[in-house]
Amino acid sequence: MKVVIVGAVAAGMSAATRLRRRDEHAEIVVLEAGEHVSFANCGLPYYVGGVITDRESLLLQTPESLHARFALDVRTHSRVVDVDAQARTVTVRTAAGDTYLETYDHLVLSPGARPIVPDVPGAERALVLRDVADVDTMAAHTADARTAVVIGGGFVGLEVAENLRHRGLDVTVVELAPQVLSALDAELAVRIQDRLEQHGVRVMTGAQVTEITADSALVSGPDGDETIPADMVVASIGVIPDSTLARAAGADLGPRGAILVDDDMRTSVPGIYAVGDAAAKHDAFSEDPTLIPLANLANRHGRRVADVITGTTGRGRPSIGTAVVGVFGLTAAVTGRTERRLRGEGRAYRALHTHPMDHAGYYPGASAMALKLLVDPETDAILGAQAIGEGGVDKRIDVIATAIHGGITASELADLELAYAPAYGSAKDPVNMLGYVAENALLGDSPSVQWHELAESGDEAPLVVDVRSRAEHSRGTVVPPWGQEPVNIPVDDLRARHGELPRDRRIVVHCQVGQRGHTATRLLRQLGYDAVNLDGGYLTWRDGLRSLAPATASV
Amino acid sequence: MKVVIVGAVAAGMSAATRLRRRDEHAEIVVLEAGEHVSFANCGLPYYVGGVITDRESLLLQTPESLHARFALDVRTHSRVVDVDAQARTVTVRTAAGDTYLETYDHLVLSPGARPIVPDVPGAERALVLRDVADVDTMAAHTADARTAVVIGGGFVGLEVAENLRHRGLDVTVVELAPQVLSALDAELAVRIQDRLEQHGVRVMTGAQVTEITADSALVSGPDGDETIPADMVVASIGVIPDSTLARAAGADLGPRGAILVDDDMRTSVPGIYAVGDAAAKHDAFSEDPTLIPLANLANRHGRRVADVITGTTGRGRPSIGTAVVGVFGLTAAVTGRTERRLRGEGRAYRALHTHPMDHAGYYPGASAMALKLLVDPETDAILGAQAIGEGGVDKRIDVIATAIHGGITASELADLELAYAPAYGSAKDPVNMLGYVAENALLGDSPSVQWHELAESGDEAPLVVDVRSRAEHSRGTVVPPWGQEPVNIPVDDLRARHGELPRDRRIVVHCQVGQRGHTATRLLRQLGYDAVNLDGGYLTWRDGLRSLAPATASV
Repeated sequence: MKVVIVGAVAAGMSAATRLRRRDEHAEIVVLEAGEHVSFANCGLPYYVGGVITDRESLLLQTPESLHARFALDVRTHSRVVDVDAQARTVTVRTAAGDTYLETYDHLVLSPGARPIVPDVPGAERALVLRDVADVDTMAAHTADARTAVVIGGGFVGLEVAENLRHRGLDVTVVELAPQVLSALDAELAVRIQDRLEQHGVRVMTGAQVTEITADSALVSGPDGDETIPADMVVASIGVIPDSTLARAAGADLGPRGAILVDDDMRTSVPGIYAVGDAAAKHDAFSEDPTLIPLANLANRHGRRVADVITGTTGRGRPSIGTAVVGVFGLTAAVTGRTERRLRGEGRAYRALHTHPMDHAGYYPGASAMALKLLVDPETDAILGAQAIGEGGVDKRIDVIATAIHGGITASELADLELAYAPAYGSAKDPVNMLGYVAENALLGDSPSVQWHELAESGDEAPLVVDVRSRAEHSRGTVVPPWGQEPVNIPVDDLRARHGELPRDRRIVVHCQVGQRGHTATRLLRQLGYDAVNLDGGYLTWRDGLRSLAPATASV
Repeated sequence: MKVVIVGAVAAGMSAATRLRRRDEHAEIVVLEAGEHVSFANCGLPYYVGGVITDRESLLLQTPESLHARFALDVRTHSRVVDVDAQARTVTVRTAAGDTYLETYDHLVLSPGARPIVPDVPGAERALVLRDVADVDTMAAHTADARTAVVIGGGFVGLEVAENLRHRGLDVTVVELAPQVLSALDAELAVRIQDRLEQHGVRVMTGAQVTEITADSALVSGPDGDETIPADMVVASIGVIPDSTLARAAGADLGPRGAILVDDDMRTSVPGIYAVGDAAAKHDAFSEDPTLIPLANLANRHGRRVADVITGTTGRGRPSIGTAVVGVFGLTAAVTGRTERRLRGEGRAYRALHTHPMDHAGYYPGASAMALKLLVDPETDAILGAQAIGEGGVDKRIDVIATAIHGGITASELADLELAYAPAYGSAKDPVNMLGYVAENALLGDSPSVQWHELAESGDEAPLVVDVRSRAEHSRGTVVPPWGQEPVNIPVDDLRARHGELPRDRRIVVHCQVGQRGHTATRLLRQLGYDAVNLDGGYLTWRDGLRSLAPATASV
């Protein structure tokens, strides 16, 4: 059996090494267009920033080390330029420009995805970050540069921005969307924007680079056009599946040209498989093909294709998508769907916001996070979760991602037995608390409204009541757009003072994070008032308003 | 409706506040024998150690605050001394020594568990840590003491030992079992013992205190009797359910006197419920009643009993038990069964050991952890997991605990999509890797032996082959008890040199952690050798041997 693998990073290399462990006698040829194999893609921005100082540590393997351990025939500078699926051959072009044919029994396409370069004048000066050659180029530029424009405020863009700032550059992030980090909903992502600005990174949202000159980038934004000094310009506006070969082979392609595969990673062409960022994933929420260019899926699918080729068919697992990014000490993580996407899909959902401490508040070093859960209101299934904070964020998202995989409902999050000691969590862990909130929502005991619903209440304006202490109220409170005078009745006074409230008008109570508001809502509803709770409290409302109007960040 | 709750900490207070939110009109009386309500039990050791400096921060609520917010009638210094289940009354003794009757419709018993005091002469001098009064006593003693003996090396004992050490005391931990932290298996727990000793805590295992004198503790251990100076003696040898009242009421009791309850927390006596450490839990692995005195279950069951009393029956969720402890910067966590317990139960299991980095090795600050998974060899169900290391330990155990709750099998851990960036994990997260190892074990591709099986191989002694580099081999290798000469063939040389190995004898290959050993095992088996891999590699073997003979800790 002869297997040819195109692409020698994550998915391709996982496939090759697993193949060897499964079949000592297979002939395994790995063809890599670039110079390096199996390098640490996800570490590249941190080498630019000097966080990772040892360049060698990024180079996980060499063709020689892979030959020694796995008897792999790894050929770098070897670009596959054509496929003949009938003859089962590929055409390989060498560094010298010669071409030759290589036969295969099984062909695994793992060419990855190409960074998208904006289609503007001067774009040839834009740097990208895909491989080790790119990182060397970027590091070299960084040495002389004082200013940089990063186009795109997604995961990689933010990592690059942080690392260039570490290098002392003046950095501007230019993002076309109204917010950075569109993988999260706006009222959470706004905290990342704050953190960037606190560390001297300028953030321009709703803006695009229209031209790149020798020393600047022209940016067109909501406030007009502006020329931003830019000794360096980095393009991080996403990637596009590298499906040239698959197309040449006649394989069916899906969204943005991603190679369509079945549960066993087979393309529509016999003998040809695809894995990694070039291949479409099976979306767990819609069953449709989708793009999820993440390293964990690439590695898993690489391993899987080796199992399939060697005769073990396994589990078909649709993908939910889980990701994390750290920006100047703040961690943001997400799994599954965002609210924005659910709304775009026209799918029913319930959103829940909490602001728990990462561990017991009485133990040193505790910090609050913002946590959001998206739930199917009919089935109570978890559709997605997001979190942002100083600590414990990746843990909670990993737990919820696991819950989604296991079919645990939102209410059942309350039942999870999670490791508790004061330095690690709370007796009621943030994930358990989400389950409690979800259960209350499901029971209908404590109806709530969202921050944006409050802003949209219109004519039938409810009365907003702050049930926090007077001191908290005086430091800033929910100001509804219809200009109501602030009302403050602390929850502990509510039994004595509820008579001050109207019985013929809807009442929206709010506290800081939603918990006292829940207690107040329960109390008032049992006393006959039409009370609802502001989900996530003042903090979510404040962050939400700021996400709508970043200029008013001092709310 | 009138509900009387006995005990005003975790479970009782969760029940009381949830009851109020569910029923504004219920009469809720909370009777607490001690002075304080709803205090932070789990923080007590850290107040002793000065890690938590603000005593007030331990006192989460007062009777006044609970009355203001939840209209609870909380009576401290009020000990319930009798129950008349027929008349539905309790007898309450006040601080002044008077008694009175209180009626109830529903009675919730949440009295907690009592620390066990060793039955030895002088035991009255032993301090315990159950409530705020205890912590005040202990803190007062700490001020003058220079030496301390902590009896018991479980979670609380280790937390107390660390905190007394923080206060500058010479501390000796005396543990009857052959290891500290019996919640984990020995080959992992030995690392906690190392860490204690590195920080100047003396650890005596297989030893017991036989007498407590005015300034010392007499310890009888494997090396004979010894008098240990002890200005303070702390007893942390476990807790026993406080079921006096339940017994008086005629309720059925279970293991160690724990109050038996159904899924709705009902005891066998109509109108009486039990929650918290006094109540038995339903063991998820055996369906038997069991003791799991943990705060997360106490809180959850407190909430649940309130739902039951107010008419909402919910989910019956058996308990798996998940816990974590930090000792001098090292974190140990566990969920589900240990190997020791499975063996004691005569239950079939498969043990898997790995030693992954908590995040990508090329990103600064990465550290290795020891991770162990216990699997049902027939069904692939996860029976338990343990981890110990500097970072990322609680996250992995929480993920696996969630997987157990969700019915995810060991192999399916490979499919979990966990948040990855180099500072947070690896593209193949430690939990995913466990899934890969479990899948290989399930497929039977790569048979393995355990460290203790190697030690017990007896007459049919296999050939042990170290497949690490020569440099690694020279720093220490597996020395089988039958005195075989060390054999070292690095995995990368194995294809060239396998002819040096015997074909008529079992071969045990090993590397540092088991991964190269897996590759070597696959290679040799395909070449016709009877090769097996040493599970967990040299590190697990080394830790295992040290756990058998702590005196040889310099191995």
